[in-house]
Amino acid sequence: SSEPNHDSLSSLTLDTQSLQNQIDELATFSDSPPPSVTRVLYTDKDVAARRYIKNLMGLAGLSVREDTIGNIFGRWDGYEPELAAVGTGSHIDAIPYSGKYDGVVGVLGAIEAINVLKKAGFKPKRSLEVIMFTSEEPTRFGISCLGSRLIAGSDTLEKALKNTYDSQNVSFSDAAKSAGYVRDNDDLSGVLLKYGTYSGFVELHIEQGPILEAEGIPIGIVTAIAAPASIKVDFEGEGGHAGAALMPNRNDAGLAAAELALALERHVLESGSIDTVGTVGILDLHPRAVNSIPSKAHVEIDTRDINETRRNIVVEKIHQSAVEIAKKRKVRLSGFEIVNQDPPALADKKVIEAMEASSRELNLDYKLMVSRAYHDSLFMARVSPMGMIFIPCYKGYSHKPEEYAAPKDLANGVKVLALTLAKLSVS
Amino acid sequence: SSEPNHDSLSSLTLDTQSLQNQIDELATFSDSPPPSVTRVLYTDKDVAARRYIKNLMGLAGLSVREDTIGNIFGRWDGYEPELAAVGTGSHIDAIPYSGKYDGVVGVLGAIEAINVLKKAGFKPKRSLEVIMFTSEEPTRFGISCLGSRLIAGSDTLEKALKNTYDSQNVSFSDAAKSAGYVRDNDDLSGVLLKYGTYSGFVELHIEQGPILEAEGIPIGIVTAIAAPASIKVDFEGEGGHAGAALMPNRNDAGLAAAELALALERHVLESGSIDTVGTVGILDLHPRAVNSIPSKAHVEIDTRDINETRRNIVVEKIHQSAVEIAKKRKVRLSGFEIVNQDPPALADKKVIEAMEASSRELNLDYKLMVSRAYHDSLFMARVSPMGMIFIPCYKGYSHKPEEYAAPKDLANGVKVLALTLAKLSVS
Ligand SMILES: [Mn+2]
Ligand SMILES: [Mn+2]
Ligand SMILES: [Mn+2]
Ligand SMILES: [Mn+2]
Repeated sequence: SSEPNHDSLSSLTLDTQSLQNQIDELATFSDSPPPSVTRVLYTDKDVAARRYIKNLMGLAGLSVREDTIGNIFGRWDGYEPELAAVGTGSHIDAIPYSGKYDGVVGVLGAIEAINVLKKAGFKPKRSLEVIMFTSEEPTRFGISCLGSRLIAGSDTLEKALKNTYDSQNVSFSDAAKSAGYVRDNDDLSGVLLKYGTYSGFVELHIEQGPILEAEGIPIGIVTAIAAPASIKVDFEGEGGHAGAALMPNRNDAGLAAAELALALERHVLESGSIDTVGTVGILDLHPRAVNSIPSKAHVEIDTRDINETRRNIVVEKIHQSAVEIAKKRKVRLSGFEIVNQDPPALADKKVIEAMEASSRELNLDYKLMVSRAYHDSLFMARVSPMGMIFIPCYKGYSHKPEEYAAPKDLANGVKVLALTLAKLSVS
Repeated sequence: SSEPNHDSLSSLTLDTQSLQNQIDELATFSDSPPPSVTRVLYTDKDVAARRYIKNLMGLAGLSVREDTIGNIFGRWDGYEPELAAVGTGSHIDAIPYSGKYDGVVGVLGAIEAINVLKKAGFKPKRSLEVIMFTSEEPTRFGISCLGSRLIAGSDTLEKALKNTYDSQNVSFSDAAKSAGYVRDNDDLSGVLLKYGTYSGFVELHIEQGPILEAEGIPIGIVTAIAAPASIKVDFEGEGGHAGAALMPNRNDAGLAAAELALALERHVLESGSIDTVGTVGILDLHPRAVNSIPSKAHVEIDTRDINETRRNIVVEKIHQSAVEIAKKRKVRLSGFEIVNQDPPALADKKVIEAMEASSRELNLDYKLMVSRAYHDSLFMARVSPMGMIFIPCYKGYSHKPEEYAAPKDLANGVKVLALTLAKLSVS
């Protein structure tokens, strides 16, 4: 039979040590010292890490292809290869000074899930495809989920990328070329995958929140992904000498930025829901000298909610505050750009059922939950039925070096993923 | 007679065009595009600019020496060379994205004053010495007036420099070596100049404030220099994922920094005096990613007053605020360093009289005033009777590209400086 042998799968000792070694080894491709990880799109470290992933895909017997922006696909052909495939995957880019599990678990774990299925003698009906998405993190070009957004199709983004530069003034296309991608005249529309390419998509990820660990539940099954919005704000004042310019004559762009950061916090708390969050992660002053009044300030804001309307109210209030603060402080609001304001995504009922059934068969307790962080699955949901598997992580920590998931939890997540892929492959 | 010929000096057409050309040419030694100037201690551009100054000193017939940290001295021997010399000078380093007049006017203007005196046939009794001070600006190592502080003598600073690094982790000593200064085993105490080395010191500088321009007065004579204090503050929180960490669980170091910046402004305004100023010119977030809660924030504060007590009250209030904000936001106040808290300096009565007499003889209206910005003269006052000559600058702008002084005002300043040096030389 082509059905997976559930008993052997659940009893199978998955190679947890090897998976852990891979996670540790991948963490060494970093531009910051351990235990932190910094791996930014199209840098040398990113290119080396991509090579590492492609090599592991090859060792797992997958056939590897890359699209023009560097999404990497490793395919295990099913015995009915003309059917829509089942996809799984995540990202391996890491924001500055972060940890080694975010995204990585969903890429290395997916390859290990393939190994588990192969060792169990499973033969897929629909092909199984492991995807490593390009730049889930917005670090370099300010665009989150770059690879999955383009897979889902975005004319606006394709156009914007022709005029997108990093903070060092390197264009997106030059950066991509330096990593071996996006050749001249390359049409980014080739990255798009039609609805129907995948019959289902499942992403394994650490929870990035404290719930599973606190409640002692090994598996989270995601029913919805919260809706993120990100905003860039720029203020411009007069600047000047910190000693000589008297206070009434000042229009300090830095103080405008400081006020906006505190206003954001206020607006988020005013929502009254624990699910509304907002962060100023970037606040740059110019000229950035102790004895110079900031003439420019650049603020980047991230706000999210599981309720899109409530989140959009926060975005609107931030805009009002930016206008009012600029007026009060006599600085210019020289920029207010809503970089993205994505709708939330719902997981697919059939995929949820497959994850639930797999957890039950493996005797793993699970919890239906919401993802507050966004993921490539947010965009894969536009082209495929989607689901996500969460595993507990230490104190809910993420995006910092202390990020950690226990080997036991990693193993449980990979097993649920393997079994879910098997079920979706034959359905 | 060795007395300067006042009539010829005041009627002499000083080479304003040549001075302006030098100012423009020096501005091209910059690490940022024109009209901005960025010239940071011991960088290639700084080294090239130093070469330019030494060359001009040589052309003016001065004998040039440098001390071990790069203060540059150009000497015109008097006919009684054993007498204490008369000093004049300023700095040529420029904070990032600033202008071309701050400091530069007092170095190029001093060399031009020497040329003026020579052309007038003047022979100095006391030697005249033009000084280009090393790093008046605190840009690279956070220490303002580095050269003049060491000339005035500071054991604490000499020791601290052995453990001082820039933001790229380059040590002071490695940076100095790369520019050809501070050889192994060099004793920085050799930079110190005894009280009595100079019988007087005069610095020509743009006002960096709006008063002279607004009142249409060509010359400011400084009676006192305001007392600056600078402070570095560090907050540390937990950091984490901007989507997943809920608001009540956060301890956001960035918001603590934003609150402190606004608290500083409040404390300064509470002083009730127009002379109290305070600035947050640097506010760095870590890890500086849009989707990461700041785990660390670094703030650099500059506060000044012509009244030292009032300024110290602001410093004390900032400390209280930092402690309270850290407590309230459950972040750690991991650093609170008062980098310097210098006393104000008074100009010397005899030097003031020489500047007043020179202005009168040149038929230039003048105003006695306070310097709100600090200058190398603040430290030269510790080893020499000191005075400063201000000239008007456009809108009082400084530390930004729009900084400007009219050729006529430059010429007036140089003439007053030349005549003041002549008077001090023979007194
Ligand atoms: Mn992430
Ligand atoms: Mn992730
Ligand atoms: Mn300055
Ligand atoms: Mn200056």
